[in-house]
Amino acid sequence: MATTSEPDGGAAAGLSRTYRDALLNDVLPFWQNHSPDRECGGYFTCLDRAGAVFDTDKFLWLQARQVWTFAHLYNTVEPRKDWLETARLGADFLAGHGRAENGSFYYALTREGRPLSQPWNIFTDAFAAMGFAEYGRAARDPRAVEIALRTYRLFEKRKTSPKGRFSKAVPGARPLESLALRMIHLNLLLVMGDLLEEAEARNTAIALIDDVLTRFRHPGLGILLENVPAGGGVSDTLEGRMVNPGHGLEVLWMALAAAERWGRADAIPLLVRSMLSVAEYGWDREYGGLLYRLDILGKPPMQIEWDRKMWWVFAEAILAFSMAYEHTRSPECLAWLERFHDYTWAHFVDPQYGEWYGYLNREGRPLQDLKGNRWKGCYHVPRALLESARALDRSRERRPRNQQAPGR
Amino acid sequence: MATTSEPDGGAAAGLSRTYRDALLNDVLPFWQNHSPDRECGGYFTCLDRAGAVFDTDKFLWLQARQVWTFAHLYNTVEPRKDWLETARLGADFLAGHGRAENGSFYYALTREGRPLSQPWNIFTDAFAAMGFAEYGRAARDPRAVEIALRTYRLFEKRKTSPKGRFSKAVPGARPLESLALRMIHLNLLLVMGDLLEEAEARNTAIALIDDVLTRFRHPGLGILLENVPAGGGVSDTLEGRMVNPGHGLEVLWMALAAAERWGRADAIPLLVRSMLSVAEYGWDREYGGLLYRLDILGKPPMQIEWDRKMWWVFAEAILAFSMAYEHTRSPECLAWLERFHDYTWAHFVDPQYGEWYGYLNREGRPLQDLKGNRWKGCYHVPRALLESARALDRSRERRPRNQQAPGR
Repeated sequence: MATTSEPDGGAAAGLSRTYRDALLNDVLPFWQNHSPDRECGGYFTCLDRAGAVFDTDKFLWLQARQVWTFAHLYNTVEPRKDWLETARLGADFLAGHGRAENGSFYYALTREGRPLSQPWNIFTDAFAAMGFAEYGRAARDPRAVEIALRTYRLFEKRKTSPKGRFSKAVPGARPLESLALRMIHLNLLLVMGDLLEEAEARNTAIALIDDVLTRFRHPGLGILLENVPAGGGVSDTLEGRMVNPGHGLEVLWMALAAAERWGRADAIPLLVRSMLSVAEYGWDREYGGLLYRLDILGKPPMQIEWDRKMWWVFAEAILAFSMAYEHTRSPECLAWLERFHDYTWAHFVDPQYGEWYGYLNREGRPLQDLKGNRWKGCYHVPRALLESARALDRSRERRPRNQQAPGR
Repeated sequence: MATTSEPDGGAAAGLSRTYRDALLNDVLPFWQNHSPDRECGGYFTCLDRAGAVFDTDKFLWLQARQVWTFAHLYNTVEPRKDWLETARLGADFLAGHGRAENGSFYYALTREGRPLSQPWNIFTDAFAAMGFAEYGRAARDPRAVEIALRTYRLFEKRKTSPKGRFSKAVPGARPLESLALRMIHLNLLLVMGDLLEEAEARNTAIALIDDVLTRFRHPGLGILLENVPAGGGVSDTLEGRMVNPGHGLEVLWMALAAAERWGRADAIPLLVRSMLSVAEYGWDREYGGLLYRLDILGKPPMQIEWDRKMWWVFAEAILAFSMAYEHTRSPECLAWLERFHDYTWAHFVDPQYGEWYGYLNREGRPLQDLKGNRWKGCYHVPRALLESARALDRSRERRPRNQQAPGR
């Protein structure tokens, strides 16, 4: 257990306990109590503050992510039967109703599983692949693994034209490449790399890490851009100047995890420095918290919701700095972790009904009395709590970088 | 001129003067000084608080609307050469670069006029038809009138499947009809009805008014719904429960103008009562102003920006209640007009640099230091100022409803 004789005064141990406790005794019970649709299968995700369902449509990003979450808990925390059953509820619903004829997953279904919105979104396929990979491992279900692999190959094919026939952009008019596709691909490799040939997974991961650090990282600012020209440089357009700090932190921790796993530990210091740059850049000096969108020239950001404080941004920030602290034991990383933690616990956490509010206004007040909707489900928060606790536990086994003996 | 011997103490005359003054000495100069792109044609619309350009892409909704605005001023206020030239700058740009092969208008072009975003949006065609109709009248340019008519016929064809191949909805899965299409069709008829056969314009307008009042008006609440089932009733879904009060007011004043023009004056009392219901329903009792989106069951609205105060909402509200007052001379309508006026002049108007801020947070503070972007251009504000002033002037020529002699 933590003791004040630890170099950080027990801070990492204390946060780790807080995260595990929140995960197991607050966040997971909220979703297990309110989201399973035992009648039609799958999950309700439009849940108000207290957990009451306010819409029954099923958005497949969120269905697949919740499958992943419960299967991952089963695989890596404890083989609890109720977790596996919760994962199965979504996996069966997706396998039974989710796929269009071409193998891609619809964007939304009705409660009963009738298609509502076409398979226009490549991220739906990515989340489905993740969900089925993790569920296949949990249930030892080779059919689920097969769906995961087939959907991964579909994702790879769609990558060069992610929106396909639904794309509104005139082909070639302004070729920008998107950080989001790198993020989701890194995420896929971290979840299901072991289902691929080792060399394929490693080479793909390393190429993605390099891409992030050389093309998406702004050389002057050290932060990540959301969209960069195919030919390099910065695009002086609204899209090209856009920064999404929370998304940057999410990409950076994934790149860090991939760098560690596939032998690119040499990239870790730059990844951590980039996290620090992003946090400095995106922090709201007026009201605290991380802003949602910024423009690198300080112009009005494209999105009118730029000043929102978003739940997932804070989940990703906590995870990013837990991992940064694990790898550096630096007081600067710990200070940022504590800053994000304090803001989150003061503003997002709802001690009365559990889980986190999704959206705060700039001043930190909840904008909507909800815990889930079409975009917020059972994913960012439990993932961040679990993986942050683990990173903080590992941090206690490492020695501070500057105390390492030469050659170690 | 206004005197306090008028029944409303000169309120209508005072507001009318304020609106004309703002239009001619503040709003129009802002756009004439900052938006014309004399090098490439068309207009810059991404303008910061002081009018500096922060992006040069050209969004065709806004290009076409600005053509309409300046042509309409020329046609109905004064045949000023500079207004016609400003209109021509946009009309020539649109005629030269705006249309795809199928005759529909692109959604966005680069500054130079290269296509950026496909013609996926039926509203672009509608605004283009309006712009060319009004410009054709101003410039006595039969080619412009021909473009307007051809584009109107295209709009009519696209109406049953507005997004065509870009639609993400699964056909027939949840057939909802949209108030926005009724709004824009009424708007088209008001602008270019005189270019159609009189019977066609009248019959179409009357059908639209009836549609709004019988299908989109919620029988219990008296407000307008944004999306209703094709077969009637209310859809208990996020889309079906959605209310956009500012949009409701915009539709209602257009329906009122159409009702007056095409012999459905009997509908006016219900249209005015609906305006009052919408204003009551959408008013933010906590912070003042009209909210952007609401859910009729009081559930969390789908849009996370539901609590924004939007410039166009207030422009449409001022115009709706100026017209309601014109037709009723009722103190209740005047009180609402003054309420919207006071909020707008206290929060949206920028005495330092001119024009209105686009977006306020719920508390009424500007969220972005801008006067134009991809959505805000030279349209709602000048239209509302001009048409409100006219309605208020006409109101002074009418006698209050309850003072009218029987039989008059």
